[in-house]
Amino acid sequence: MIPLQDNALLPAGFRAAAVQCGIRPRRKRLDLGLVLADEACPAAAIYTTNMLQGAHIPVCREHLSRSGGMVRAVLVNSGNANCSTGQQGIEDNRTVCRALAERIGCAPEQVLFLSTGVIGARLPVEKVLEALPELLGQDAQQGASAFTQAIMTTDLVPKLVARSCADAKGRLFRVTGIAKGSGMIHPNMATMLSFLMTDAACELDMEQTLRRTADLSYHRLSVDGDTSPNDTVVLWTSRRTRIEPSTALPEALREISQDLARRIAVDGEGATRLVTVEVKGAPSEADAVHVGRTIATSPLTKTAVHGRDPNWGRILAAAGRSGIRFDAERARVWIGSSEVYSHGVPHPENENAAHLHMLNEKEVVLGIDLGAGPGEAQVWTCDFSADYVHINADYRS
Amino acid sequence: MIPLQDNALLPAGFRAAAVQCGIRPRRKRLDLGLVLADEACPAAAIYTTNMLQGAHIPVCREHLSRSGGMVRAVLVNSGNANCSTGQQGIEDNRTVCRALAERIGCAPEQVLFLSTGVIGARLPVEKVLEALPELLGQDAQQGASAFTQAIMTTDLVPKLVARSCADAKGRLFRVTGIAKGSGMIHPNMATMLSFLMTDAACELDMEQTLRRTADLSYHRLSVDGDTSPNDTVVLWTSRRTRIEPSTALPEALREISQDLARRIAVDGEGATRLVTVEVKGAPSEADAVHVGRTIATSPLTKTAVHGRDPNWGRILAAAGRSGIRFDAERARVWIGSSEVYSHGVPHPENENAAHLHMLNEKEVVLGIDLGAGPGEAQVWTCDFSADYVHINADYRS
Repeated sequence: MIPLQDNALLPAGFRAAAVQCGIRPRRKRLDLGLVLADEACPAAAIYTTNMLQGAHIPVCREHLSRSGGMVRAVLVNSGNANCSTGQQGIEDNRTVCRALAERIGCAPEQVLFLSTGVIGARLPVEKVLEALPELLGQDAQQGASAFTQAIMTTDLVPKLVARSCADAKGRLFRVTGIAKGSGMIHPNMATMLSFLMTDAACELDMEQTLRRTADLSYHRLSVDGDTSPNDTVVLWTSRRTRIEPSTALPEALREISQDLARRIAVDGEGATRLVTVEVKGAPSEADAVHVGRTIATSPLTKTAVHGRDPNWGRILAAAGRSGIRFDAERARVWIGSSEVYSHGVPHPENENAAHLHMLNEKEVVLGIDLGAGPGEAQVWTCDFSADYVHINADYRS
Repeated sequence: MIPLQDNALLPAGFRAAAVQCGIRPRRKRLDLGLVLADEACPAAAIYTTNMLQGAHIPVCREHLSRSGGMVRAVLVNSGNANCSTGQQGIEDNRTVCRALAERIGCAPEQVLFLSTGVIGARLPVEKVLEALPELLGQDAQQGASAFTQAIMTTDLVPKLVARSCADAKGRLFRVTGIAKGSGMIHPNMATMLSFLMTDAACELDMEQTLRRTADLSYHRLSVDGDTSPNDTVVLWTSRRTRIEPSTALPEALREISQDLARRIAVDGEGATRLVTVEVKGAPSEADAVHVGRTIATSPLTKTAVHGRDPNWGRILAAAGRSGIRFDAERARVWIGSSEVYSHGVPHPENENAAHLHMLNEKEVVLGIDLGAGPGEAQVWTCDFSADYVHINADYRS
């Protein structure tokens, strides 16, 4: 079993480890990671809405359903997405789950096994199976950091946030969030994986809490508008610390997930700026998110940020084509803290300050007030650089 | 009045001319174009769906409504979009319409005056007014080609298609289509303008015919997913040739508009390939268009084409996130004539042929059959190059 060392970044009741199992033979790096709970405990997961879905998604759904949402182990490999692999891919996932369950002494449906990496190639099952003893032994790299590294694909930086929080009565609990994403996965698309772990036990609907958390974070994140067949977010609690029903846990989950979402955006391929799109005055919050996403996925907006060009016309026009009704004569647009357009009138005198904000700040704020209601939201993205094109065009040719 | 010379590319009853009025002082080129009908004759127009709309759009709507759809002159300037210019912009448009109407002897509402170019700057009305005598005189450059050049902004090539057609009884009529678009307009977004002129007179609902024509052509075109506040398509007939009610005119309009749409795509900034996305097996034609547009606007698909990478996973995943329901296990994907994925199984043995198609053909075909119904459609776009980013990022910084 995994020794208890270097797991300080995880909530009580969880341990993590990682090994190099050789899925990417040419790259010497960790590619198989495990988080193990001391005993099976409640988890929920949400998945990509893409019609193309990696093999792990139907198996995870089935396992959570059969186990009543009780999970003992989360295993993740990088380097191979086990996607577009047909029935074989599903069988391969089950084989690994059974083998791990047998070694740790639980039911196979208490294991979730996720994959990220190249699509369309069969998972090297034997390599994963052969690596399990090492992964569970003393020689594996221990701890949340090792796990975080093992799930990276083309991410430039690992993404891990650990936090101690207090409920209304001052009782401490912990939340740890780990994510990967935004780097494209050769030869295919970005996969976003995130694992939110806590030791807090309180009367929350796990899936509902996870959905609201994702709505406020990962669902407000766009790197290039494409979604992956393997996107998965898992919420998991060891229930070691009983806390008072309060907003403390949902708030901690939201803050950590937003932090991770921003880290994913800024790690976007070729990105040089984190872009926060602020939308106000939309008819509803959902409308504000929709307008924000339209601005955040506009190639014209994203290339303007890359060029540090305070091009408010592109922001206004992207909002204008979002399908949300508003009167451009009542709208306001700002960049950083500089208002560059309001009520039908451009403010060219403020464009230099806006340009300096884009030039000097690592986080660029693009704001629009539609003047059409109370809805507001923030959406995160990154700028669009020639490097993005090089990275994504120059793979096989 | 415009002398009848070099107007051979236009249908009977139309003449065109262009001058350099100096809207772009640093660029010595034609920037004001006019098409004049011998007498006011039926026209219809459709406009951008963007909530931000250039000043010409409300005035065009009002003029067509007040004139009963009878138009004598279409005037177009490039270099200034007269957009985000408030009430002043609308007054400026009206001033020019009144001045031209007075000179040619018609009601102001029989004039349409369209603008394309930079947004957020006031139209230099005096320059336009001062240029009208020259535009109507012997010294203006004559003909459809001059008009086509005058409406270009960052287009690399003029886009004009003229054709003689025959109705079911062999009676000849003419259709001429002129378009500009896809090049971004410094410092703002692409504007697509198109003028479809014919001398055919038959019992067609003009606006309905124009909408169907655009649905089959311009609405299936994407360069970067952004729409402009000034997009406008005008259909105009001099009614000089009475033809039998038949499909000849709608078919000619469709073919010419599709030809122009493809020319716009291939003239996309930084583009090196025309991309035709073929969608089959969608639940409906509208669903097929929606899936095609999602593929055609995916940065991952477009960068893959630029890299000549037969990356079918990106095509399938873009379709998968379109919102149209289908079973990826029943889908097929092809590139050129090479099937690279079918029924859940990749065909890596065909990827080299697909790569060669992308490498050697100027028009790349990306196809997907969703296996979910009878709907099919083609959508046109271009590849996404680092030059696109440079052109759109490097304007003001």
